[in-house]
Amino acid sequence: MLEHKERLRKLRAELKKRSLGSILVTNETNVRYLSGFRGGDSFIIITPDSQFFLTDSRYTEEAGDSIGGFTIVEVTTSIYDSLSGIVKKSRIKKIGFESMNIPYEVAGKLAGCIRPAKLVTTKNIIENLRAVKDSKEIEAVKRSVNVTKRVLKNIAERIRPGVSERSISDSIECEFIRHGARIAFETITACGKNCSKPHAHATKERIASNDVVMLDMGCRLDFYNSDITRVFFIGKVKDKIKEIYNIVRSAQAAAIEKIRPGIKISEIDFAGRGYIERKGYGRFFGHSLGHGIGMDVHEEPSISKRNNNLLRSGMIFTIEPAIYLPKFGGVRIEDMVLVTDKGCEILTR
Amino acid sequence: MLEHKERLRKLRAELKKRSLGSILVTNETNVRYLSGFRGGDSFIIITPDSQFFLTDSRYTEEAGDSIGGFTIVEVTTSIYDSLSGIVKKSRIKKIGFESMNIPYEVAGKLAGCIRPAKLVTTKNIIENLRAVKDSKEIEAVKRSVNVTKRVLKNIAERIRPGVSERSISDSIECEFIRHGARIAFETITACGKNCSKPHAHATKERIASNDVVMLDMGCRLDFYNSDITRVFFIGKVKDKIKEIYNIVRSAQAAAIEKIRPGIKISEIDFAGRGYIERKGYGRFFGHSLGHGIGMDVHEEPSISKRNNNLLRSGMIFTIEPAIYLPKFGGVRIEDMVLVTDKGCEILTR
Repeated sequence: MLEHKERLRKLRAELKKRSLGSILVTNETNVRYLSGFRGGDSFIIITPDSQFFLTDSRYTEEAGDSIGGFTIVEVTTSIYDSLSGIVKKSRIKKIGFESMNIPYEVAGKLAGCIRPAKLVTTKNIIENLRAVKDSKEIEAVKRSVNVTKRVLKNIAERIRPGVSERSISDSIECEFIRHGARIAFETITACGKNCSKPHAHATKERIASNDVVMLDMGCRLDFYNSDITRVFFIGKVKDKIKEIYNIVRSAQAAAIEKIRPGIKISEIDFAGRGYIERKGYGRFFGHSLGHGIGMDVHEEPSISKRNNNLLRSGMIFTIEPAIYLPKFGGVRIEDMVLVTDKGCEILTR
Repeated sequence: MLEHKERLRKLRAELKKRSLGSILVTNETNVRYLSGFRGGDSFIIITPDSQFFLTDSRYTEEAGDSIGGFTIVEVTTSIYDSLSGIVKKSRIKKIGFESMNIPYEVAGKLAGCIRPAKLVTTKNIIENLRAVKDSKEIEAVKRSVNVTKRVLKNIAERIRPGVSERSISDSIECEFIRHGARIAFETITACGKNCSKPHAHATKERIASNDVVMLDMGCRLDFYNSDITRVFFIGKVKDKIKEIYNIVRSAQAAAIEKIRPGIKISEIDFAGRGYIERKGYGRFFGHSLGHGIGMDVHEEPSISKRNNNLLRSGMIFTIEPAIYLPKFGGVRIEDMVLVTDKGCEILTR
């Protein structure tokens, strides 16, 4: 519970910077981050001197048992009534809400029901706190990575001609369960031409001889995610595939070399993408270079050319350059890195 | 693809009723319902005479291969630019958006970027179409139900003293994978006192002799979901548990008896809840009586006392009365029903 106290303290400091005393937290992951609650459909209201945990009858008992330091409020009629009750009782004049999370329709109703108090947009306050992991979180991510690595190692032995994409995905997902984990996202197993689709769905297609197989897999263990992409060559593959494989690998190395606290995040994307562009494949790499990962598979920081925020020690994200050649094939290599005080640690090697 | 054409036709008729020619569809399930697309992060724009499918480079090739009848637009910079481009080119003056789906922040930006065209709120238009299943969907739901029934039958044989909640949930989830399906939601396996938590998480706790075990499980197969809750008595259980079990069973029967096209949906909730209230357990049943199920696990219609819409043939939903006694235990029984022309068919028996 200590870490939750520290998170609330940091959140209140951020609110103060924005001249906001109170905030309504609705994003499920943010609610979990602040409270440790394992269920869903619950909300948090932070005021300068109290914190309320709003849930319904499905979760009241669990919330009472599992989270500390919050006043638990059972929502009986609607979130609107509960919120307006707390706003009145706590004499809140202005309360922030997560404007990237609450639907337009709901925000309008919330604003109406708390009048004359004001509902104020906020964006990414908690997401930005979550981007920098504390030591317990780093350990949790590493445990999740270790399960994925172990399963990847076991599965690698089963990748051979005649085996279908789908049966590989199935085996991976069962293996995760056996390790007490669950998939973090739909496992991607793609062979041959299917590798040109960045988010291919595993089909009944079978691995051929002299084929390429791409696995993009990751698990969620105790709410922390991992995400790795590897490419396997079965026998002799086409020269073109080898060529793009080497380019992608070098692009990844160029990006990882840049990583240290204080640089602009966009510089990492430029380094990886620049390498691929110089080799003439820029237009075959459409997505961003990577994404933060932790309690969500995709979270802050986005490793994109538009993110000019500064890199900070404790951030964890993927580096996943790729080249996709439509109707031909593709290669993506994805690793997870942790920013350290001096550079970075590759978590997935 | 025929069914998608029919769905688009119905959607356009609904839009016309609201004096709207165009709509931006962002809800992932609604996008899939209208197009058959299996991926994510994609959007549809319907105008009176065209339909556009907006996706990014991760999905362009897949969209081209798998969906028909749409003009595919690759989003290169942002959804804002792509939308405003189409609005201009198609001379749209007014376009609806799904105001329960788009975050407040995004709706504001969208409204700004399409000016002078107007962005208009809409609610549940496609969700209400989806509530009434066509014959192909009914077959898909039945296939999903059959997998859950088969796995339930296999698992039932393994429920005995000494087995942990978690190992049962694990086995269920692996069995689903073996049947080519995936879990529709986190499997609930609860024994003894844990049954008082409607959404309990499976723990390491082991089944005792003379124990109660509650399983709430369901799979997703080809994008259609199933959802069943069963209670198992291991040996001799407490009289109180037997008592509430019988009440819950009778409450479910009373609710199911009401089901036929044309009645108010709230009447079903009243019938089930009323029975429990008359037996003196009303305050121990906090959630609504059931929920629509199809491409989403929870969808329209909500079987609640506040839903005064009329029941229609082709609707599929759960009926799941329950009694939860805090720190003591609980019973929920959940079945899925299909509304037929004359009454209903119980899909999960």
